[in-house]
Amino acid sequence: MIKSIQTNDTRFDIGDQAGSDAIHKNPQYSYAVTLLKDNSGHTGSGLAFTLGEGNDLVCRGAEFLASSLQGRDIEDLMANFGEVQRKLADEQQFRWLGPHKGVAHLALSSVTNACWDLWAKTRGVPLWKLLLDLSPEELVNTIDFSYLEDELTKEQALKIITDHQATRKQREGILHQGYPGYDTSIGWFNYSDEQIKENVKKSVDAGFTAMKLKVGSSNMDADLKRTEIVRSGAGRLATLMVDANQQWTLSRALEFGERAKDYNLFWIEEPTHPDDILGHATLAKAYAPHTKVAAGEHVPNRIIFKNYFQAKAFGYCQADAVRVAGISEFLAISLMARQRNIPVVPHVGDMGQIHQHLVLFNHIGLGHEALLLEHIPHLSEHFIHPCQVSGGVYHTPQEPGMSSDLK
Amino acid sequence: MIKSIQTNDTRFDIGDQAGSDAIHKNPQYSYAVTLLKDNSGHTGSGLAFTLGEGNDLVCRGAEFLASSLQGRDIEDLMANFGEVQRKLADEQQFRWLGPHKGVAHLALSSVTNACWDLWAKTRGVPLWKLLLDLSPEELVNTIDFSYLEDELTKEQALKIITDHQATRKQREGILHQGYPGYDTSIGWFNYSDEQIKENVKKSVDAGFTAMKLKVGSSNMDADLKRTEIVRSGAGRLATLMVDANQQWTLSRALEFGERAKDYNLFWIEEPTHPDDILGHATLAKAYAPHTKVAAGEHVPNRIIFKNYFQAKAFGYCQADAVRVAGISEFLAISLMARQRNIPVVPHVGDMGQIHQHLVLFNHIGLGHEALLLEHIPHLSEHFIHPCQVSGGVYHTPQEPGMSSDLK
Repeated sequence: MIKSIQTNDTRFDIGDQAGSDAIHKNPQYSYAVTLLKDNSGHTGSGLAFTLGEGNDLVCRGAEFLASSLQGRDIEDLMANFGEVQRKLADEQQFRWLGPHKGVAHLALSSVTNACWDLWAKTRGVPLWKLLLDLSPEELVNTIDFSYLEDELTKEQALKIITDHQATRKQREGILHQGYPGYDTSIGWFNYSDEQIKENVKKSVDAGFTAMKLKVGSSNMDADLKRTEIVRSGAGRLATLMVDANQQWTLSRALEFGERAKDYNLFWIEEPTHPDDILGHATLAKAYAPHTKVAAGEHVPNRIIFKNYFQAKAFGYCQADAVRVAGISEFLAISLMARQRNIPVVPHVGDMGQIHQHLVLFNHIGLGHEALLLEHIPHLSEHFIHPCQVSGGVYHTPQEPGMSSDLK
Repeated sequence: MIKSIQTNDTRFDIGDQAGSDAIHKNPQYSYAVTLLKDNSGHTGSGLAFTLGEGNDLVCRGAEFLASSLQGRDIEDLMANFGEVQRKLADEQQFRWLGPHKGVAHLALSSVTNACWDLWAKTRGVPLWKLLLDLSPEELVNTIDFSYLEDELTKEQALKIITDHQATRKQREGILHQGYPGYDTSIGWFNYSDEQIKENVKKSVDAGFTAMKLKVGSSNMDADLKRTEIVRSGAGRLATLMVDANQQWTLSRALEFGERAKDYNLFWIEEPTHPDDILGHATLAKAYAPHTKVAAGEHVPNRIIFKNYFQAKAFGYCQADAVRVAGISEFLAISLMARQRNIPVVPHVGDMGQIHQHLVLFNHIGLGHEALLLEHIPHLSEHFIHPCQVSGGVYHTPQEPGMSSDLK
């Protein structure tokens, strides 16, 4: 039984270099943390990610939403969590603040993740194993499918999960091999060309074969020069992505795609404003076949993702479980992506702590390709069980829960 | 010079009948108010609307955003307010909470409106007159056009305003005739059929020829019966709209459109989730030629409106200046609407106080048709200058500012 609820506004100073991008020059990586303590001694720890200012607002929202969970039994709660979540998301007066976006939805993310973490801990298993242990029915009951009916019904979701059960064994090797990571920290926006050159070398030495560079400066020549530096440092065979963090207008984004044709980019990430679905669809068409659009870290909910899928607006889906309404909504999005054959390559607002579990489930449970998971190490020291990345891969977490306990 | 900044969390009890809809059964109409006092004795009063819970979060966000305005001269600020607004909207750390949606954007709405109100008051004119007095250049300089370039450039906006200057006189008659209102309070969701019948009679007696009914109950037969009640009470010639407040799935929304064909509905409002742009486009196509889609009260910013226009997802644009980033973003949306020939019929989260000014400018200044403005009287008593509606029309406000001072 959940006997106490607490939220923590946790902010970390990471300096003015790491974490910088074309739009966010001085982020302060922060978590709005929801803690749910039950009377068996377990504490569910749920995260939502922000960049600092307003993290307190998310905490206050989470407190409001979580208050209705007081006294509830976690097994009972999770047996029909899809309905619980819909009720929370549609709180009569609070809903107006979104609906299903912004502070109110980040708050729901934090609360939802705390529930899932508590559930996994009381069962004594890591999140990835909990997800694989659940029956298809139990799993779909944790998801709110409302407003997805024209794209993915509960029944279709059930079928996707059931259809992939027989072949799970073939994909379980990933648990021992480790899940491939890619290195985002070679090329933060504020890094000099020299630093980037050096970071690429370190990254290659550390075993990474995939890495990402921040672009979107006011000088496109400089962006292309940096791209050249990374490509030549990492080698012809490395998987190289660039990330404009929404900085470009549509025409600038088209121009970059045209000029970067020869760099064999795996994707161009957030080329323009995340709300411009049709703009992304235009870009996805224009970039083919040379490269693809990746987006999702600022797409707030399953309904907008549905439109992204329907409009064929991206080639890689970067849903983030600490932006959308937590694990449950992430699963809804992963199921839609599976149906559309779009790979899920999460944005790791949680620094990969939760997402390392989710990509394992996506691969083994849903048959998603084991493609890549972003790696950003800047908060490692603050987690009790920081994700273990070496040789370019994430090693499978074994601790109960979803690895999001902060020190 | 702005010498003090204050925010007020103002909530009003309106009972459990008025204001109710299919999604919000117990709203508490609330304003997150920003007050900017200058050293000439004027106070700019800016509103953002919410339904109660979390109104304090919007106030806190507004405090944060407004703090940078301390000591600024209002004329100086408004001379380039488009840039000021972009800077506020892109506040490095705060932006992550949206971007440009939810609590953070509602906060920007409140702050923006306070600036405009202060500007109009220091010039001693009502907002509608201020807007008409500004030169086309001054006007476009108050607007942030970023991410609209593929739909509407600053130059195109300038041309729309300039092109309509010569014919203004022909449209100024509206200032004396009054702007046509429509009555939303005949058919709130929680009203009984009997109450609705009576309200329709009262509304017709008060001079309204246009009215709106809340639908979206779990029983579509009951919705249709209510529609029938209003149609027969208001007469064959009355302009009748229904509003589902996002309650329906796409297939239910299609079904209602099919079954309601014979009621000659002027529009069907918010048939499904406001984030489902492509769903709205499907409905707009399916509803033609019998009726049209109206939406916008939950569309948070100009970029999503841009997609609505581009996808031909609605026939009436219901932007709300206390939801989007205030007057400035409302103007950007009105300009896009004008270019697409889509009428703007605002949602009046401000109870029509500000919007009575905006529709006058839209008609006289931009050549929008003087179609309709929603009328909801439930907060009249709380405003110092409540809008004056009689004979079914809004009478032109004459007090300086935008009529949003609360008692």
